[in-house]
Amino acid sequence: MNEQYLTVDRIKLKEQLLYPHAGYIVADAKLLALYPQYFDRNHALPSLYLKASERSKSLKTVEKIYEFFLLHNVSRSDTVHVFGGGLICDVAAYAVATFKRGCCLKLYPSTLLAMVDAAIGGKCAVNYKQHKNYIGAFYPAEEIILHPGFLDSLKEEDLRQGIAEMIKCMLIEPSLSAIDPLNASLPRSRQILEYAGYKMQLCAQDPHDRGLRRLLNYGHSFGHILEQKSNYRFKHGDCVIVGIQLAAQVACESGIIDPSTADYIRHVIECYPIPAGLSSFVAQLDFQELKQDLKWDKKGVGQKVSLILPTGIRRVASFELDLSNPAWLP
Amino acid sequence: MNEQYLTVDRIKLKEQLLYPHAGYIVADAKLLALYPQYFDRNHALPSLYLKASERSKSLKTVEKIYEFFLLHNVSRSDTVHVFGGGLICDVAAYAVATFKRGCCLKLYPSTLLAMVDAAIGGKCAVNYKQHKNYIGAFYPAEEIILHPGFLDSLKEEDLRQGIAEMIKCMLIEPSLSAIDPLNASLPRSRQILEYAGYKMQLCAQDPHDRGLRRLLNYGHSFGHILEQKSNYRFKHGDCVIVGIQLAAQVACESGIIDPSTADYIRHVIECYPIPAGLSSFVAQLDFQELKQDLKWDKKGVGQKVSLILPTGIRRVASFELDLSNPAWLP
Repeated sequence: MNEQYLTVDRIKLKEQLLYPHAGYIVADAKLLALYPQYFDRNHALPSLYLKASERSKSLKTVEKIYEFFLLHNVSRSDTVHVFGGGLICDVAAYAVATFKRGCCLKLYPSTLLAMVDAAIGGKCAVNYKQHKNYIGAFYPAEEIILHPGFLDSLKEEDLRQGIAEMIKCMLIEPSLSAIDPLNASLPRSRQILEYAGYKMQLCAQDPHDRGLRRLLNYGHSFGHILEQKSNYRFKHGDCVIVGIQLAAQVACESGIIDPSTADYIRHVIECYPIPAGLSSFVAQLDFQELKQDLKWDKKGVGQKVSLILPTGIRRVASFELDLSNPAWLP
Repeated sequence: MNEQYLTVDRIKLKEQLLYPHAGYIVADAKLLALYPQYFDRNHALPSLYLKASERSKSLKTVEKIYEFFLLHNVSRSDTVHVFGGGLICDVAAYAVATFKRGCCLKLYPSTLLAMVDAAIGGKCAVNYKQHKNYIGAFYPAEEIILHPGFLDSLKEEDLRQGIAEMIKCMLIEPSLSAIDPLNASLPRSRQILEYAGYKMQLCAQDPHDRGLRRLLNYGHSFGHILEQKSNYRFKHGDCVIVGIQLAAQVACESGIIDPSTADYIRHVIECYPIPAGLSSFVAQLDFQELKQDLKWDKKGVGQKVSLILPTGIRRVASFELDLSNPAWLP
């Protein structure tokens, strides 16, 4: 358990967290409270602590980070170390990407969701008005350091959000080890690295999200709508799992998958503890209206919407729907 | 003079300007007034006209462009055609680069400065507080369309700003054709393409401005300071020419160039009609203080500043100066 670590591409798995020796820190304020011995030390690097909330994932917070960079005259060759969940990683990485046209970025995701998903692949973004992640950039981090120790302090429901993305990947890629969402123990470190590495490799083949990478959007188009409609009362991973359910429903109704595949997906999803509140929220929504809402999806084009649908067991593909002529086309 | 055009990389020289057949227009409002037959037609594409001023090169204007994109539900695969000088190209390209993490961008620079410099190389940016171009991105346009006809309506002083950047390039790269700034006639179309192409090729070798491309910064570090100190009363190209003068002064005082090289540079610069107001503004500034101000340059690192200095006739190199120990080192 010394400085040795496993790596996949630019992802490093470090059991022991070491404080950076140079640069600037942008971190979730919660982490300072949870790990004071780590963050709040003598000779600490210049640090900015941010409150993480969906409302604060905004251009206003980005400007707050710019102010911090200005105060310290941060230069393009300086490294900014970002500690936090997906939200802090997203907003801080966007600020780093755009300050002086980009400084050096290292990400230290502190949640399972960020470790296997948000921090991987170079996407950063903030919300704009009611639109999620509408303003952003592709700015891959120089290094992503996974420190599973951060997960010890994670609440059960936050851990679940990461497991949701892992289940999504498992339903896309047969080679990934199966995740048992009912198992209360943490996914092992090497499994985290496996899933982070899977996403990293997929993204490397499609850095600007023009093709292959869209598969990772499985469950997300409907998921984002649910997050939005509920005013972000429900969490991202939970909504993605429901989104996968809805996508499977579309695929089944359209004859894209046969009932046995639908059963398989249903079986996997049923093991996932969707909060009761979310289930009843979804039950009272109109499915046709949900489909209309798809056209606001960032990836849509005019009246055409695209959606990732299951095509078999652990297999998905991208489909298009013309809203004026509702038949899904591959 | 039909649709035929010369191209260098993604730069197209088109003698005849053709209206785009699809996408969205962001343009300088001045162009609408000057070329109503071109912009203000039946069946025009959705268009946003902006007032170009250094004050409007801000995140506020970027948000105005976001609003326009939102209104029309612009998608990532849509093309945004940007018509204007360097300022409009910079601010609109930044909005295009960051909206939904980047839409398709085509630039139609309308000033000589934008044609040979600002629109080439993928840099886009806005000012932040008093800091020039502090927020930005690298986002190369899909295509840059040079239409020399736009130059007919350009004022003499605006034309001069482009010639200033051409002179800068001429003092860097021996292979470029010599520009005679005293010649009142426009540079020829092919000369414009030659200079734009030179910058494009240099940028292709260093897309993120980490090395080679910094040579283009010749005259700019001091130039930016003069712009700032004068509250943008003086124009960019004029300030760059004075910046080259100051850089030559530094190089001469430090023994980097011999008097005959200094004479050559002085001779070239003297042919350029620097406005009398700028000359007297510079005369009352303190040279030591100007050097201190270099540390606010975007490309600086802490107490170290870097500066492009002449090293010979039509030859420059990057030097570093530690402000606490003022000797220039290569």
